[in-house]
Amino acid sequence: MEQSPIENLINDISKLPGLGRRSAQRIALFLLKNKNKNLTPLINSLKISYDKIIECTDCGNIDVQNPCNICKNNKRDKLTICIVEDISDLWTFEKVGFFNGLYHVLGGSLSAIQGIGSSDIKLEHLIKRVETHGVKEVILALSTTIEGQTTSFVIADKLEKFKNLNITRLAQGIPMGGEVHYLDENTLNTAFQSRKKIT
Amino acid sequence: MEQSPIENLINDISKLPGLGRRSAQRIALFLLKNKNKNLTPLINSLKISYDKIIECTDCGNIDVQNPCNICKNNKRDKLTICIVEDISDLWTFEKVGFFNGLYHVLGGSLSAIQGIGSSDIKLEHLIKRVETHGVKEVILALSTTIEGQTTSFVIADKLEKFKNLNITRLAQGIPMGGEVHYLDENTLNTAFQSRKKIT
Repeated sequence: MEQSPIENLINDISKLPGLGRRSAQRIALFLLKNKNKNLTPLINSLKISYDKIIECTDCGNIDVQNPCNICKNNKRDKLTICIVEDISDLWTFEKVGFFNGLYHVLGGSLSAIQGIGSSDIKLEHLIKRVETHGVKEVILALSTTIEGQTTSFVIADKLEKFKNLNITRLAQGIPMGGEVHYLDENTLNTAFQSRKKIT
Repeated sequence: MEQSPIENLINDISKLPGLGRRSAQRIALFLLKNKNKNLTPLINSLKISYDKIIECTDCGNIDVQNPCNICKNNKRDKLTICIVEDISDLWTFEKVGFFNGLYHVLGGSLSAIQGIGSSDIKLEHLIKRVETHGVKEVILALSTTIEGQTTSFVIADKLEKFKNLNITRLAQGIPMGGEVHYLDENTLNTAFQSRKKIT
């Protein structure tokens, strides 16, 4: 039996991350009840995105140009590369705005369970970038999950051969505004071990 | 300054009901990271919906045909009309499947605050339907909110002139599976006042 377009639409919407069937239904109704006001602009926006947005072959960011506006920007420090798992992490850094180097978007972290190996996270490409441009510092800004930490170790291991390269990672400890009695054991332990002299 | 297509896409997605900026960002990235697998099917599905799905001029349901498959179905009881606020309510009734009559989708309930008056909820059209087809029963299946109740009263008032018409509403009381000590005052009071003899 052929499915109705309404059913198909709800199915396609419910495939989006974070949406279940009920929210998909709500969104479908919202779009269909006022097609010209709600549905048409969304279709246009998606079509423009399909046509214009491309991946930067240097860093893995997405933009309307390749290389992206960050890689292209001559005011940025091209000898410092911040390694992030995902484009949303890059956006977070850019929103805060204190980092003036380039990025390298892995597009995930190594995970045996999800079958993500080193060929999936653009590791070779990173090594080539470091080599070609004589990069001075690589900052590992990955999640402090098991997968993120494993990935950090693997990357650090691969980059060790570059003698002039500093490999750093984000500091680990109590988050700002965090209360000690709410901290998990791991964080507390890490923060304790890495304690700093204040005078 | 012209906004980037990525920014526009996130904006358009975040206008959908139930989605904030962060979920919109997540969805946009999901779509853009694998355009052919994720974005293309969604655009197609939305386009087909735009072209094919229309409102039923009889009952306010949406379908690929007008009148809709419910209004057109000769096995359904055309002399009983269930009045619902929204198409999603109609879908809930249809999913459960015990109701065999027709529907009338108001498209909202009367609300002075939101500026929804009786011309917005297809009241005249309902009266015409009842008159033309000699409807026997109208079931008010609106929310038990102040707006829903007000709307029920207004509709009942307008339909009173049809002497042979039964106007009913859904029973009010404890929901099935509900625990008495969790009930709000209003529900408990209503359930108590409407208590039924069991022998």
